[in-house]
Amino acid sequence: MAKIAIIGLGLIGGSMGLALKRAKLTNTEVVGFDRDPQVAARALKAGAIQSAAPTLQQAVSRATIIVVATPILSVRKVFEEIAPHLQRNAIVTDTASTKQEVMRWAQEILPEGVHFVGGHPMAGKEKSGPQAAEESLFDGRPYVLIPSVSAGGGAVQAVQTLAQTIGAEPTFLDAAEHDTYAAAISHLPLVASMALFSLARASLAWPELGNMAGPAFRDFTRLASGEPEMSHDIFLTNRVEVLHWLDRYVAELQRLAELISSDDSEALFRAIAETQMDREAFLSSPPVRETPGPGLELPGQLDSFMSQMAGVLWQQRASEITQDLEERSRQRQREERLRRRED
Amino acid sequence: MAKIAIIGLGLIGGSMGLALKRAKLTNTEVVGFDRDPQVAARALKAGAIQSAAPTLQQAVSRATIIVVATPILSVRKVFEEIAPHLQRNAIVTDTASTKQEVMRWAQEILPEGVHFVGGHPMAGKEKSGPQAAEESLFDGRPYVLIPSVSAGGGAVQAVQTLAQTIGAEPTFLDAAEHDTYAAAISHLPLVASMALFSLARASLAWPELGNMAGPAFRDFTRLASGEPEMSHDIFLTNRVEVLHWLDRYVAELQRLAELISSDDSEALFRAIAETQMDREAFLSSPPVRETPGPGLELPGQLDSFMSQMAGVLWQQRASEITQDLEERSRQRQREERLRRRED
Repeated sequence: MAKIAIIGLGLIGGSMGLALKRAKLTNTEVVGFDRDPQVAARALKAGAIQSAAPTLQQAVSRATIIVVATPILSVRKVFEEIAPHLQRNAIVTDTASTKQEVMRWAQEILPEGVHFVGGHPMAGKEKSGPQAAEESLFDGRPYVLIPSVSAGGGAVQAVQTLAQTIGAEPTFLDAAEHDTYAAAISHLPLVASMALFSLARASLAWPELGNMAGPAFRDFTRLASGEPEMSHDIFLTNRVEVLHWLDRYVAELQRLAELISSDDSEALFRAIAETQMDREAFLSSPPVRETPGPGLELPGQLDSFMSQMAGVLWQQRASEITQDLEERSRQRQREERLRRRED
Repeated sequence: MAKIAIIGLGLIGGSMGLALKRAKLTNTEVVGFDRDPQVAARALKAGAIQSAAPTLQQAVSRATIIVVATPILSVRKVFEEIAPHLQRNAIVTDTASTKQEVMRWAQEILPEGVHFVGGHPMAGKEKSGPQAAEESLFDGRPYVLIPSVSAGGGAVQAVQTLAQTIGAEPTFLDAAEHDTYAAAISHLPLVASMALFSLARASLAWPELGNMAGPAFRDFTRLASGEPEMSHDIFLTNRVEVLHWLDRYVAELQRLAELISSDDSEALFRAIAETQMDREAFLSSPPVRETPGPGLELPGQLDSFMSQMAGVLWQQRASEITQDLEERSRQRQREERLRRRED
């Protein structure tokens, strides 16, 4: 019997539980813990977890995989609290939206013999909390995995299988790459969305603006409705990258402002039309980044994998596989990038 | 028999035709014209118009209401071409996204005895062209009306009724107000959306960015897929206002950047949480701007109005009503704004 412990049962933790339930795993027990007993009770009632552990210690005790799905700044404290209670060879993963800090905390705090694999399911919505959880949240979404240096290959494979089991598509990055990419396509839109809404809202003309605002304004400011704690933690733990992309964004806005104010209306048209064509191309054939490397067979179901794991993981046979997997994955990325640049 | 002529049968003109058809008007003929005969044929086939006029002149000849639904920069040329062929007391309206230039062109070009009422249905989507037209496009959307100084009250009422007939909610503004509000809630998001997409697209990491990009990035860059000609014309005819709001947007982004880089994480949290609460309040109870003024009974159907019009409009009895309507509308806005500020 494999025990999966989900710590934090909000949107991500709750949805993961529901997606695991949908996968109808056998031979696997899903236990949950949340600081808020009402949230835990709700997850239990919704079937996202099979039992609610009364304490964090009991949740992680004898657990095979521990998924830390709390707000980012709480991850560190959870690591500190669970560290003494983890069994040897336990696999710890997280779901935080920024990764460099979390990887550092894991290395500092988690004991030797515990395998940490950072994770970030690229899924979410502006509604947060357990009531927003849904089993299909991760379907078809990228799930970024970042193995720590001490994670065995079996542990990496276990988290990869977990991601696939909940419907996501695992992909490998390193923490710095992840954080700069996430800043560009997720955290920058968050700031840009907040800025647009707060600018309009602070205007004396707000009654008229709000009345005239259509779907464009609503879509564009949707991210400003996200959970404040999440945005706050993202900005604090990815500050340098967010500020970097904000700078570049302001420069791009100023480039467009110059085009708009210039008398070269043809250049303006060309810039608009190019952007439009590029976006259409993006929608019709989004860039694909292939993982995992070839030759690595993955069991489709977590439970069959779990049965293997009891025998396999404990022997640590697989740290070479990880290195190989990572090396191959990086190699393929490099080739892919070179190929694209030549196109 | 009242004749409505729609000039330009793309998304807006085509949708207006379909919405008029849905209203099952009697005693009314809807004629269309498009420079592209294939577009006209498509509109005819879809039932958006009852007949396609072979020339612009034939389309507007003996028409009661002429709706100019072409790209903004073409409106001027259409005015020039139709001016000699308009019957006395014809009502001309347009659907352009910016209004100050259009109001100027109407005053310069349209002959005396023709009533111009500027219009802007605040509806649209990123798909353009006649194939994107739909009868429900205007349902529940604000439809800004800007009577020219020479427009009779009956003409204003006719365009107001037209807007209601297609499902929209007419509202009165002056052209300068309209253009600055539209710059804030519609044209600024357009630039912001383009800038985010082009920034990500130009990055060497684009394959990874595009692969990781989720619904947030897609929603936020949706406007960058808009028709290039429309964006171009908007920027050229509303340059000052767009640049003004872009400046303010950059300043707001810099304010947020300072909050993110400061060590006062509580102030950062407060700013995020306030914006989130304000947006929730906006979604649950958007500001309402009431028009028309009280005491003005509007016929619910364009056809009953059209029958009245033959007798009424021609007598020009109603220019006082317009002035009254506008004055009352402005008075109510003023009161409303004062009331809100005191809250």
